[in-house]
Amino acid sequence: GYGRFGVQYTDDGTNDSLDVTSRLRLQIDVSAESDAGVTFGARTRFQTAEGEGDTGMNGVRFFARTNGFEVGVGNIYGALENMPGMYDIDLGLTGLGYDYTAFNSRGDAYSSSGAGNSGDNGIEVIYSVGDFKAHVSASETSDRIAAVASYNYNGWTMAAAVQDSDNDVDTEWALSVSGNFGPAMVSLAYAANGDEDDVVNGVQGGDHIVLAARFDIGAATNIEAYVADADYFAETSYGIDFNHDMGGGTSLRGGVASLGDDTTRADLGVRFNF
Amino acid sequence: GYGRFGVQYTDDGTNDSLDVTSRLRLQIDVSAESDAGVTFGARTRFQTAEGEGDTGMNGVRFFARTNGFEVGVGNIYGALENMPGMYDIDLGLTGLGYDYTAFNSRGDAYSSSGAGNSGDNGIEVIYSVGDFKAHVSASETSDRIAAVASYNYNGWTMAAAVQDSDNDVDTEWALSVSGNFGPAMVSLAYAANGDEDDVVNGVQGGDHIVLAARFDIGAATNIEAYVADADYFAETSYGIDFNHDMGGGTSLRGGVASLGDDTTRADLGVRFNF
Amino acid sequence: GYGRFGVQYTDDGTNDSLDVTSRLRLQIDVSAESDAGVTFGARTRFQTAEGEGDTGMNGVRFFARTNGFEVGVGNIYGALENMPGMYDIDLGLTGLGYDYTAFNSRGDAYSSSGAGNSGDNGIEVIYSVGDFKAHVSASETSDRIAAVASYNYNGWTMAAAVQDSDNDVDTEWALSVSGNFGPAMVSLAYAANGDEDDVVNGVQGGDHIVLAARFDIGAATNIEAYVADADYFAETSYGIDFNHDMGGGTSLRGGVASLGDDTTRADLGVRFNF
Repeated sequence: GYGRFGVQYTDDGTNDSLDVTSRLRLQIDVSAESDAGVTFGARTRFQTAEGEGDTGMNGVRFFARTNGFEVGVGNIYGALENMPGMYDIDLGLTGLGYDYTAFNSRGDAYSSSGAGNSGDNGIEVIYSVGDFKAHVSASETSDRIAAVASYNYNGWTMAAAVQDSDNDVDTEWALSVSGNFGPAMVSLAYAANGDEDDVVNGVQGGDHIVLAARFDIGAATNIEAYVADADYFAETSYGIDFNHDMGGGTSLRGGVASLGDDTTRADLGVRFNF
Repeated sequence: GYGRFGVQYTDDGTNDSLDVTSRLRLQIDVSAESDAGVTFGARTRFQTAEGEGDTGMNGVRFFARTNGFEVGVGNIYGALENMPGMYDIDLGLTGLGYDYTAFNSRGDAYSSSGAGNSGDNGIEVIYSVGDFKAHVSASETSDRIAAVASYNYNGWTMAAAVQDSDNDVDTEWALSVSGNFGPAMVSLAYAANGDEDDVVNGVQGGDHIVLAARFDIGAATNIEAYVADADYFAETSYGIDFNHDMGGGTSLRGGVASLGDDTTRADLGVRFNF
Repeated sequence: GYGRFGVQYTDDGTNDSLDVTSRLRLQIDVSAESDAGVTFGARTRFQTAEGEGDTGMNGVRFFARTNGFEVGVGNIYGALENMPGMYDIDLGLTGLGYDYTAFNSRGDAYSSSGAGNSGDNGIEVIYSVGDFKAHVSASETSDRIAAVASYNYNGWTMAAAVQDSDNDVDTEWALSVSGNFGPAMVSLAYAANGDEDDVVNGVQGGDHIVLAARFDIGAATNIEAYVADADYFAETSYGIDFNHDMGGGTSLRGGVASLGDDTTRADLGVRFNF
């Protein structure tokens, strides 16, 4: 697991605040292997954020895996959440709003604190062979079924996704490409998240496009940045961060982002792995 | 602990459903031993079932143990729950309704998710000497006090129980006998769970009788089956399952049962120990 | 962590009760050290008391520490709670009301079950050099800021505290001195917890003074006792206990106290460390 703590600044144009932020994640991975070589296992997390007390185990993801083929049930990863290009950068200490994730959480995803798709007949199949990977996930949340295929070619990863859902503002399809130019990683992702005129429970549909990059600036430090726009943004979203490796699994991280809803967020702190 | 996952089918005559089922149990047993040879310890579980999120530790059972003598407090096992003959089989992946448990949960029992008899002045004494075992438990739930004595003779286990309780539909007394005929285990259990005319909070009293058996059919596979009847059943309950050991602590399990309330349940899945 | 269980007797003058008492504490300390020698870490607990089920992780305390200097955030220890002289004895199995803690919990403190000052911008700095130690803590609970300085001289520890708070019945200042006379430890503590005429949410202010002592009576047994008085007590509070080490991390403990609100409490039981 890991811990992280620091300070977070938020300014929504009306009010601003500077607060302590923290998270502790204890991840428990268990498994057993049958004589025929099939691995059966489960992942669960105990995760507590600043201000939380009496926090329990989240919903569990179970899996059976053999020869590059994996079936998962319960609190599944979700094909879109796991799609290459969606989390190519991890801004600042806390993610700073995640406007750089083109599918905008409009698909099934692993939940670190709740049940996720556990109890919702969440199921997924992941298949990898050489440079090719496919991921299909389904659940009874809006009867979603999503499929992602990705291919790695000479250090470039291309991915395409389609999703069928009863929710008009869920992601319909998405594309991404990412790869390296020397010391830089560049990522471009696009998602069609319903129609701009659709509004479901206060959530508006529309297209979402993200350009993100990471640059190494020295042996232990990198900088990440993104620009993103979406039909449901009031303005263009952008942000920049730095990550400095302090050794021993510890790092200093900080960033600032101007979000699509015109909020400014900044954070600074330490992350340590254990 | 262990994990298990698979599918479960239920048909209550009006509606049927086929759903993912799962459970992850992390069991924590801690203890310390005094210089005089008394072991003091505790057991607690973190257990999450399909659809649950934010699950905490259950009530804790504490014990002091020496020379075959054990005192437990808190979330106690319970004498009836722990009586030989009550869980001689474990049907399918999930238990499939447990109609084959003659005392029908009408006594104190360890709770894997709640407090159980913790906070209820639950206390129990267990004493073993040679082939003889006695178990007395008490709590303030209906002021229950239950005593079970069991004896093992040439591979046959005989057990007798009595319980005093303020609840008219709690178990009054019970008998069981179980043992092996070559590759088969056979178990017969009877419990007097109050009078057939008594109804307390919608729970009816009456007698409950169970005949259960297990047969090894090959080196790694067995089959379990039961027939049970009770005054509070609408019809005779019966079921059958199979358990196939896949090695490495993993097994494939499945079963089907026609329950006393006329519901049909079936399950199929994998269990793995870690 | 540790477990403890036994019985607790309470008599408030009107009603008396004798009940099972228990607690299980699983403490998780994690950390990582940077190349420059700074340790980053976190502490969290899973703690369940008699009668509790479904108990989660408490609020987390995070820290960065180097060369006797430590910064903590989240569910902080609190300067007053951590002040020498406040918990020089630990009466009986359960603490028996803690009337011998002069600051009377009128300052920030680590919470074993809730969020504590996590989410409340709790922050603290602890600095130790040789025999000197300083501890400053602050939070948004009544905008408390507390500072404690302590010095150890020839086996005697002297400590002084001041606190600024928006709550009139919070501790304003405190003093303590404790040390050893041969086989005995003696501790004297005083806290000014607001004015005697102030009442905030039913809590009255006033001075609180405690004299406590521990005597070794044999190789494995000691006795602790205290006398305490406070403006908000109906009568003088006093108590006595014994602790007998049974080896292997196990001990037998028991005590009796007549509290300031005229309640009598007694307990007896076992504690084991693991």
